[in-house]
Amino acid sequence: MKGKFITVEGTEGVGKTTNIQCIASWLDERGIAYISTREPGGTALGEKIRGLLLDKENTGMAASAELLLMFAARAQHLEEKIIPALEVGTWVLCDRFTDATYAYQGFGRGLNLEHIKRLEALVQGDLHPDFTLILDIDPELGMSRVRARGELDRFESEALEFFDRVRAGYRERASDNPSRYCLVDASSPLAVVQEHIVAALNAFVGGAE
Amino acid sequence: MKGKFITVEGTEGVGKTTNIQCIASWLDERGIAYISTREPGGTALGEKIRGLLLDKENTGMAASAELLLMFAARAQHLEEKIIPALEVGTWVLCDRFTDATYAYQGFGRGLNLEHIKRLEALVQGDLHPDFTLILDIDPELGMSRVRARGELDRFESEALEFFDRVRAGYRERASDNPSRYCLVDASSPLAVVQEHIVAALNAFVGGAE
Repeated sequence: MKGKFITVEGTEGVGKTTNIQCIASWLDERGIAYISTREPGGTALGEKIRGLLLDKENTGMAASAELLLMFAARAQHLEEKIIPALEVGTWVLCDRFTDATYAYQGFGRGLNLEHIKRLEALVQGDLHPDFTLILDIDPELGMSRVRARGELDRFESEALEFFDRVRAGYRERASDNPSRYCLVDASSPLAVVQEHIVAALNAFVGGAE
Repeated sequence: MKGKFITVEGTEGVGKTTNIQCIASWLDERGIAYISTREPGGTALGEKIRGLLLDKENTGMAASAELLLMFAARAQHLEEKIIPALEVGTWVLCDRFTDATYAYQGFGRGLNLEHIKRLEALVQGDLHPDFTLILDIDPELGMSRVRARGELDRFESEALEFFDRVRAGYRERASDNPSRYCLVDASSPLAVVQEHIVAALNAFVGGAE
Protein backbone atom coordinates (compact mmCIF):
# COMPACT_ATOMS: atom_id res chain seq x y z
CA MET A 1 0.00 0.00 0.00
CA LYS A 2 1.24 3.48 -0.84
CA GLY A 3 -0.51 5.34 1.99
CA LYS A 4 0.09 4.75 5.68
CA PHE A 5 -2.58 3.47 8.02
CA ILE A 6 -2.66 5.12 11.45
CA THR A 7 -5.05 4.03 14.18
CA VAL A 8 -5.86 5.55 17.56
CA GLU A 9 -7.02 3.35 20.42
CA GLY A 10 -7.98 3.58 24.05
CA THR A 11 -10.75 3.06 26.59
CA GLU A 12 -13.63 5.50 27.09
CA GLY A 13 -12.82 9.11 28.00
CA VAL A 14 -9.16 8.77 27.13
CA GLY A 15 -9.12 11.84 24.89
CA LYS A 16 -9.14 10.19 21.46
CA THR A 17 -10.91 13.05 19.68
CA THR A 18 -8.45 15.70 20.90
CA ASN A 19 -5.42 13.61 20.08
CA ILE A 20 -6.72 12.56 16.67
CA GLN A 21 -6.88 16.30 15.98
CA CYS A 22 -3.22 16.53 17.02
CA ILE A 23 -2.30 13.83 14.47
CA ALA A 24 -4.44 15.52 11.82
CA SER A 25 -2.56 18.79 12.41
CA TRP A 26 0.75 16.95 12.12
CA LEU A 27 -0.39 15.49 8.76
CA ASP A 28 -1.64 18.89 7.58
CA GLU A 29 1.70 20.53 8.43
CA ARG A 30 3.51 17.98 6.28
CA GLY A 31 1.02 18.33 3.43
CA ILE A 32 0.13 14.64 3.64
CA ALA A 33 -3.26 13.78 2.07
CA TYR A 34 -5.38 11.73 4.45
CA ILE A 35 -8.90 10.75 5.38
CA SER A 36 -10.14 10.65 8.95
CA THR A 37 -12.59 7.89 9.78
CA ARG A 38 -13.79 5.67 12.61
CA GLU A 39 -14.81 2.19 13.67
CA PRO A 40 -17.25 0.74 14.05
CA GLY A 41 -18.61 2.85 11.22
CA GLY A 42 -16.94 4.92 8.55
CA THR A 43 -19.39 3.93 5.78
CA ALA A 44 -23.15 4.26 5.47
CA LEU A 45 -23.63 0.55 6.20
CA GLY A 46 -20.96 0.60 8.92
CA GLU A 47 -22.68 3.47 10.71
CA LYS A 48 -25.94 1.49 10.72
CA ILE A 49 -24.07 -1.46 12.22
CA ARG A 50 -22.51 0.93 14.76
CA GLY A 51 -26.04 1.98 15.67
CA LEU A 52 -26.92 -1.66 16.48
CA LEU A 53 -23.72 -2.12 18.48
CA LEU A 54 -24.06 1.00 20.64
CA ASP A 55 -27.83 0.92 21.14
CA LYS A 56 -28.59 0.13 24.78
CA GLU A 57 -31.91 -1.34 23.64
CA ASN A 58 -29.97 -4.31 22.27
CA THR A 59 -29.67 -6.01 25.61
CA GLY A 60 -28.64 -9.63 25.55
CA MET A 61 -26.47 -9.26 22.44
CA ALA A 62 -24.34 -12.41 22.26
CA ALA A 63 -20.62 -11.61 22.48
CA SER A 64 -20.08 -13.71 19.35
CA ALA A 65 -22.69 -11.66 17.46
CA GLU A 66 -21.04 -8.44 18.66
CA LEU A 67 -17.70 -9.71 17.37
CA LEU A 68 -19.11 -10.60 13.94
CA LEU A 69 -20.92 -7.26 13.64
CA MET A 70 -17.61 -5.49 14.32
CA PHE A 71 -15.95 -7.44 11.53
CA ALA A 72 -18.92 -6.97 9.17
CA ALA A 73 -18.61 -3.20 9.55
CA ARG A 74 -14.83 -3.53 9.13
CA ALA A 75 -15.11 -5.57 5.93
CA GLN A 76 -17.28 -2.86 4.41
CA HIS A 77 -14.95 -0.13 5.66
CA LEU A 78 -11.88 -1.81 4.21
CA GLU A 79 -13.42 -2.46 0.80
CA GLU A 80 -15.25 0.82 0.39
CA LYS A 81 -12.92 3.31 2.02
CA ILE A 82 -9.65 2.23 3.64
CA ILE A 83 -8.07 0.11 0.89
CA PRO A 84 -9.03 2.46 -1.97
CA ALA A 85 -7.46 5.38 -0.03
CA LEU A 86 -4.24 3.55 0.83
CA GLU A 87 -3.89 2.31 -2.75
CA VAL A 88 -3.75 5.83 -4.15
CA GLY A 89 -1.32 7.00 -1.47
CA THR A 90 -3.82 8.70 0.83
CA TRP A 91 -3.10 8.08 4.50
CA VAL A 92 -5.91 6.78 6.70
CA LEU A 93 -6.37 8.06 10.23
CA CYS A 94 -8.86 5.79 12.00
CA ASP A 95 -10.48 6.13 15.43
CA ARG A 96 -10.26 2.48 16.58
CA PHE A 97 -9.63 -0.65 14.52
CA THR A 98 -8.92 -4.33 15.19
CA ASP A 99 -6.87 -3.67 18.33
CA ALA A 100 -10.16 -2.54 19.84
CA THR A 101 -11.72 -5.88 18.89
CA TYR A 102 -8.97 -7.77 20.71
CA ALA A 103 -9.23 -5.42 23.69
CA TYR A 104 -13.03 -5.16 24.00
CA GLN A 105 -14.37 -8.46 22.65
CA GLY A 106 -11.29 -10.53 23.52
CA PHE A 107 -9.97 -9.23 26.83
CA GLY A 108 -13.18 -7.42 27.86
CA ARG A 109 -15.81 -10.02 26.93
CA GLY A 110 -13.51 -13.00 27.27
CA LEU A 111 -13.87 -14.28 23.69
CA ASN A 112 -11.17 -16.62 22.42
CA LEU A 113 -8.27 -14.51 21.07
CA GLU A 114 -7.44 -17.22 18.55
CA HIS A 115 -10.96 -16.90 17.08
CA ILE A 116 -10.47 -13.17 16.72
CA LYS A 117 -7.15 -13.79 15.02
CA ARG A 118 -8.81 -16.12 12.50
CA LEU A 119 -11.50 -13.55 11.72
CA GLU A 120 -8.84 -10.86 11.38
CA ALA A 121 -7.01 -13.01 8.83
CA LEU A 122 -10.22 -13.76 6.91
CA VAL A 123 -11.30 -10.11 6.74
CA GLN A 124 -8.01 -8.25 6.50
CA GLY A 125 -5.59 -10.71 4.91
CA ASP A 126 -2.22 -9.19 5.77
CA LEU A 127 -3.41 -5.60 6.04
CA HIS A 128 -2.61 -4.09 9.45
CA PRO A 129 -2.14 -0.54 10.72
CA ASP A 130 1.36 0.86 10.25
CA PHE A 131 1.26 2.96 13.40
CA THR A 132 -1.09 2.66 16.37
CA LEU A 133 -1.39 5.20 19.15
CA ILE A 134 -2.76 3.72 22.35
CA LEU A 135 -3.94 6.30 24.85
CA ASP A 136 -3.69 4.72 28.27
CA ILE A 137 -5.64 5.89 31.29
CA ASP A 138 -7.08 4.58 34.55
CA PRO A 139 -10.64 3.63 33.46
CA GLU A 140 -12.04 5.26 36.59
CA LEU A 141 -10.67 8.64 35.49
CA GLY A 142 -11.78 8.05 31.91
CA MET A 143 -15.31 7.09 32.90
CA SER A 144 -15.68 10.17 35.10
CA ARG A 145 -15.03 12.24 31.95
CA VAL A 146 -17.50 10.15 29.91
CA ARG A 147 -20.26 10.44 32.49
CA ALA A 148 -19.88 14.22 32.40
CA ARG A 149 -20.68 14.14 28.65
CA GLY A 150 -24.20 12.77 29.07
CA GLU A 151 -26.05 9.52 28.41
CA LEU A 152 -23.97 6.35 28.17
CA ASP A 153 -24.08 3.94 25.22
CA ARG A 154 -24.11 0.13 25.42
CA PHE A 155 -20.33 -0.13 25.85
CA GLU A 156 -19.95 2.86 28.16
CA SER A 157 -22.56 1.26 30.42
CA GLU A 158 -20.23 -1.64 31.23
CA ALA A 159 -18.79 -2.01 34.73
CA LEU A 160 -15.35 -0.62 35.58
CA GLU A 161 -13.88 -4.14 35.72
CA PHE A 162 -14.72 -4.54 32.04
CA PHE A 163 -12.62 -1.49 31.17
CA ASP A 164 -9.81 -2.67 33.43
CA ARG A 165 -9.64 -5.82 31.30
CA VAL A 166 -9.85 -3.81 28.06
CA ARG A 167 -7.01 -1.56 29.23
CA ALA A 168 -4.91 -4.56 30.19
CA GLY A 169 -5.54 -5.98 26.71
CA TYR A 170 -4.32 -2.81 25.02
CA ARG A 171 -1.21 -2.71 27.23
CA GLU A 172 -0.43 -6.33 26.47
CA ARG A 173 -0.71 -5.79 22.73
CA ALA A 174 1.53 -2.73 22.95
CA SER A 175 4.20 -4.54 24.94
CA ASP A 176 4.08 -7.53 22.57
CA ASN A 177 4.85 -5.37 19.54
CA PRO A 178 6.55 -2.09 20.59
CA SER A 179 7.61 -1.24 17.04
CA ARG A 180 4.04 -0.71 15.83
CA TYR A 181 2.50 0.73 18.98
CA CYS A 182 3.02 4.01 20.78
CA LEU A 183 1.56 3.79 24.29
CA VAL A 184 1.03 7.19 25.89
CA ASP A 185 -0.01 8.00 29.46
CA ALA A 186 -3.17 9.99 28.75
CA SER A 187 -3.44 11.27 32.31
CA SER A 188 -0.44 13.54 31.71
CA PRO A 189 -1.03 17.21 30.86
CA LEU A 190 -2.24 17.56 27.26
CA ALA A 191 0.94 19.34 26.13
CA VAL A 192 3.04 16.43 27.39
CA VAL A 193 0.78 13.85 25.73
CA GLN A 194 0.92 15.65 22.41
CA GLU A 195 4.68 16.17 22.56
CA HIS A 196 4.97 12.42 23.00
CA ILE A 197 2.63 11.74 20.06
CA VAL A 198 4.46 14.12 17.72
CA ALA A 199 7.84 12.64 18.66
CA ALA A 200 6.50 9.14 17.94
CA LEU A 201 5.08 10.23 14.58
CA ASN A 202 8.38 11.88 13.63
CA ALA A 203 10.21 8.72 14.55
CA PHE A 204 7.66 6.70 12.52
CA VAL A 205 8.36 8.66 9.32
CA GLY A 206 12.05 8.46 10.08
CA GLY A 207 12.50 12.17 10.52
CA ALA A 208 13.16 12.48 14.24
CA GLU A 209 13.24 16.19 14.95
CA MET B 1 -28.68 -32.24 21.52
CA LYS B 2 -32.00 -33.78 22.48
CA GLY B 3 -34.16 -31.95 19.91
CA LYS B 4 -33.79 -32.30 16.16
CA PHE B 5 -32.84 -29.40 13.91
CA ILE B 6 -34.72 -29.21 10.60
CA THR B 7 -33.98 -26.58 7.96
CA VAL B 8 -35.76 -25.67 4.75
CA GLU B 9 -33.84 -24.17 1.84
CA GLY B 10 -34.37 -23.00 -1.69
CA THR B 11 -34.23 -20.05 -4.05
CA GLU B 12 -36.88 -17.32 -4.21
CA GLY B 13 -40.46 -18.32 -4.96
CA VAL B 14 -39.83 -22.00 -4.37
CA GLY B 15 -42.72 -22.40 -1.93
CA LYS B 16 -40.86 -22.51 1.38
CA THR B 17 -43.70 -21.06 3.44
CA THR B 18 -46.25 -23.61 2.23
CA ASN B 19 -43.92 -26.54 2.70
CA ILE B 20 -42.73 -25.38 6.13
CA GLN B 21 -46.43 -25.55 7.04
CA CYS B 22 -46.47 -29.13 5.78
CA ILE B 23 -43.55 -30.02 8.09
CA ALA B 24 -45.20 -28.17 10.99
CA SER B 25 -48.37 -30.25 10.49
CA TRP B 26 -46.30 -33.44 10.44
CA LEU B 27 -44.69 -32.39 13.77
CA ASP B 28 -48.08 -31.47 15.23
CA GLU B 29 -49.55 -34.84 14.26
CA ARG B 30 -46.77 -36.60 16.14
CA GLY B 31 -47.09 -34.32 19.17
CA ILE B 32 -43.49 -33.18 18.79
CA ALA B 33 -42.76 -29.85 20.52
CA TYR B 34 -41.02 -27.42 18.16
CA ILE B 35 -40.34 -23.79 17.41
CA SER B 36 -40.56 -22.33 13.94
CA THR B 37 -38.03 -19.62 13.12
CA ARG B 38 -36.09 -18.11 10.23
CA GLU B 39 -32.77 -16.78 9.01
CA PRO B 40 -31.52 -14.20 8.73
CA GLY B 41 -33.52 -13.18 11.78
CA GLY B 42 -35.29 -15.18 14.45
CA THR B 43 -34.29 -12.85 17.31
CA ALA B 44 -34.86 -9.14 17.91
CA LEU B 45 -31.24 -8.34 16.98
CA GLY B 46 -31.29 -10.82 14.09
CA GLU B 47 -34.39 -9.22 12.60
CA LYS B 48 -32.63 -5.83 12.68
CA ILE B 49 -29.67 -7.39 10.87
CA ARG B 50 -32.12 -8.95 8.39
CA GLY B 51 -33.46 -5.45 7.81
CA LEU B 52 -29.98 -4.26 6.81
CA LEU B 53 -29.42 -7.30 4.58
CA LEU B 54 -32.70 -7.03 2.65
CA ASP B 55 -32.90 -3.25 2.40
CA LYS B 56 -32.41 -2.21 -1.21
CA GLU B 57 -31.11 1.14 0.05
CA ASN B 58 -27.93 -0.67 1.11
CA THR B 59 -26.43 -0.63 -2.35
CA GLY B 60 -22.75 -1.40 -2.59
CA MET B 61 -22.77 -3.79 0.36
CA ALA B 62 -19.48 -5.69 0.22
CA ALA B 63 -20.03 -9.44 -0.21
CA SER B 64 -17.70 -10.01 2.75
CA ALA B 65 -19.79 -7.69 4.93
CA GLU B 66 -22.96 -9.49 3.82
CA LEU B 67 -21.38 -12.82 4.80
CA LEU B 68 -20.37 -11.56 8.25
CA LEU B 69 -23.79 -10.00 8.88
CA MET B 70 -25.37 -13.39 8.09
CA PHE B 71 -23.13 -15.09 10.64
CA ALA B 72 -23.64 -12.32 13.22
CA ALA B 73 -27.40 -12.86 13.06
CA ARG B 74 -26.78 -16.62 13.19
CA ALA B 75 -24.54 -16.40 16.27
CA GLN B 76 -27.30 -14.53 18.10
CA HIS B 77 -29.93 -16.96 16.86
CA LEU B 78 -27.96 -20.00 18.01
CA GLU B 79 -27.18 -18.64 21.46
CA GLU B 80 -30.55 -17.07 22.20
CA LYS B 81 -32.97 -19.45 20.57
CA ILE B 82 -31.79 -22.54 18.67
CA ILE B 83 -29.39 -24.14 21.17
CA PRO B 84 -31.61 -23.55 24.24
CA ALA B 85 -34.52 -25.18 22.39
CA LEU B 86 -32.56 -28.21 21.19
CA GLU B 87 -31.06 -28.70 24.65
CA VAL B 88 -34.46 -29.16 26.26
CA GLY B 89 -35.65 -31.50 23.51
CA THR B 90 -37.65 -28.99 21.48
CA TRP B 91 -37.24 -29.42 17.75
CA VAL B 92 -36.27 -26.40 15.66
CA LEU B 93 -37.80 -25.81 12.23
CA CYS B 94 -35.85 -23.07 10.51
CA ASP B 95 -36.51 -21.25 7.24
CA ARG B 96 -32.95 -21.13 5.84
CA PHE B 97 -29.65 -21.67 7.66
CA THR B 98 -25.98 -22.07 6.71
CA ASP B 99 -26.71 -23.96 3.49
CA ALA B 100 -28.16 -20.66 2.27
CA THR B 101 -24.88 -18.93 3.13
CA TYR B 102 -22.95 -21.42 1.02
CA ALA B 103 -25.49 -21.14 -1.80
CA TYR B 104 -26.02 -17.35 -1.84
CA GLN B 105 -22.74 -15.86 -0.59
CA GLY B 106 -20.52 -18.73 -1.78
CA PHE B 107 -21.95 -19.92 -5.10
CA GLY B 108 -24.04 -16.80 -5.79
CA ARG B 109 -21.57 -14.05 -4.85
CA GLY B 110 -18.46 -16.12 -5.52
CA LEU B 111 -16.97 -15.89 -2.02
CA ASN B 112 -14.38 -18.48 -1.07
CA LEU B 113 -16.20 -21.60 0.19
CA GLU B 114 -13.27 -22.40 2.47
CA HIS B 115 -13.74 -19.01 4.21
CA ILE B 116 -17.40 -19.80 4.75
CA LYS B 117 -16.43 -23.17 6.18
CA ARG B 118 -14.06 -21.50 8.65
CA LEU B 119 -16.74 -19.06 9.77
CA GLU B 120 -19.22 -21.92 10.09
CA ALA B 121 -16.79 -23.75 12.38
CA LEU B 122 -16.13 -20.62 14.46
CA VAL B 123 -19.81 -19.81 14.92
CA GLN B 124 -21.43 -23.25 15.06
CA GLY B 125 -18.72 -25.57 16.34
CA ASP B 126 -20.06 -28.97 15.34
CA LEU B 127 -23.75 -28.03 15.37
CA HIS B 128 -25.41 -28.73 12.01
CA PRO B 129 -29.00 -29.37 10.95
CA ASP B 130 -30.12 -32.98 11.26
CA PHE B 131 -32.43 -32.82 8.24
CA THR B 132 -32.48 -30.30 5.43
CA LEU B 133 -35.20 -30.00 2.84
CA ILE B 134 -34.05 -28.33 -0.36
CA LEU B 135 -36.86 -27.17 -2.59
CA ASP B 136 -35.51 -27.08 -6.12
CA ILE B 137 -36.99 -25.03 -8.93
CA ASP B 138 -36.00 -23.30 -12.14
CA PRO B 139 -35.23 -19.75 -10.89
CA GLU B 140 -37.15 -18.28 -13.82
CA LEU B 141 -40.33 -19.97 -12.60
CA GLY B 142 -39.59 -19.03 -8.97
CA MET B 143 -38.95 -15.39 -9.78
CA SER B 144 -42.17 -15.11 -11.77
CA ARG B 145 -43.99 -16.11 -8.54
CA VAL B 146 -41.96 -13.63 -6.46
CA ARG B 147 -42.60 -10.75 -8.83
CA ALA B 148 -46.33 -11.40 -8.53
CA ARG B 149 -46.07 -10.82 -4.75
CA GLY B 150 -44.98 -7.20 -5.02
CA GLU B 151 -41.82 -5.17 -4.45
CA LEU B 152 -38.51 -7.03 -4.54
CA ASP B 153 -35.92 -6.94 -1.72
CA ARG B 154 -32.13 -6.61 -2.15
CA PHE B 155 -31.66 -10.32 -2.87
CA GLU B 156 -34.76 -10.76 -5.00
CA SER B 157 -33.48 -7.92 -7.18
CA GLU B 158 -30.48 -9.98 -8.33
CA ALA B 159 -30.25 -11.16 -11.93
CA LEU B 160 -31.45 -14.62 -12.93
CA GLU B 161 -27.85 -15.83 -13.39
CA PHE B 162 -27.27 -15.20 -9.68
CA PHE B 163 -30.12 -17.55 -8.76
CA ASP B 164 -28.90 -20.12 -11.29
CA ARG B 165 -25.60 -20.21 -9.36
CA VAL B 166 -27.42 -20.35 -6.00
CA ARG B 167 -29.54 -23.27 -7.21
CA ALA B 168 -26.46 -25.10 -8.51
CA GLY B 169 -24.88 -24.58 -5.07
CA TYR B 170 -27.83 -26.11 -3.30
CA ARG B 171 -27.85 -29.07 -5.69
CA GLU B 172 -24.15 -29.65 -5.22
CA ARG B 173 -24.47 -29.64 -1.44
CA ALA B 174 -27.37 -32.08 -1.61
CA SER B 175 -25.51 -34.47 -3.88
CA ASP B 176 -22.38 -34.31 -1.69
CA ASN B 177 -24.28 -35.43 1.39
CA PRO B 178 -27.48 -37.27 0.43
CA SER B 179 -28.05 -38.61 3.95
CA ARG B 180 -28.73 -35.17 5.42
CA TYR B 181 -30.49 -33.56 2.47
CA CYS B 182 -33.82 -34.18 0.85
CA LEU B 183 -33.95 -32.50 -2.55
CA VAL B 184 -37.46 -32.10 -3.91
CA ASP B 185 -38.59 -30.91 -7.34
CA ALA B 186 -40.73 -27.95 -6.29
CA SER B 187 -42.25 -27.54 -9.75
CA SER B 188 -44.28 -30.74 -9.22
CA PRO B 189 -47.92 -30.48 -8.10
CA LEU B 190 -48.09 -29.53 -4.40
CA ALA B 191 -49.57 -32.89 -3.37
CA VAL B 192 -46.63 -34.71 -4.97
CA VAL B 193 -44.10 -32.36 -3.31
CA GLN B 194 -45.67 -32.85 0.09
CA GLU B 195 -45.95 -36.61 -0.28
CA HIS B 196 -42.21 -36.62 -0.98
CA ILE B 197 -41.51 -34.41 2.07
CA VAL B 198 -43.59 -36.54 4.43
CA ALA B 199 -41.94 -39.74 3.19
CA ALA B 200 -38.51 -38.21 3.77
CA LEU B 201 -39.46 -37.08 7.29
CA ASN B 202 -40.82 -40.54 8.11
CA ALA B 203 -37.60 -42.10 6.88
CA PHE B 204 -35.66 -39.53 8.95
CA VAL B 205 -37.34 -40.58 12.18
CA GLY B 206 -36.93 -44.18 11.20
CA GLY B 207 -40.62 -44.86 10.93
CA ALA B 208 -41.17 -45.33 7.20
CA GLU B 209 -44.90 -45.68 6.76
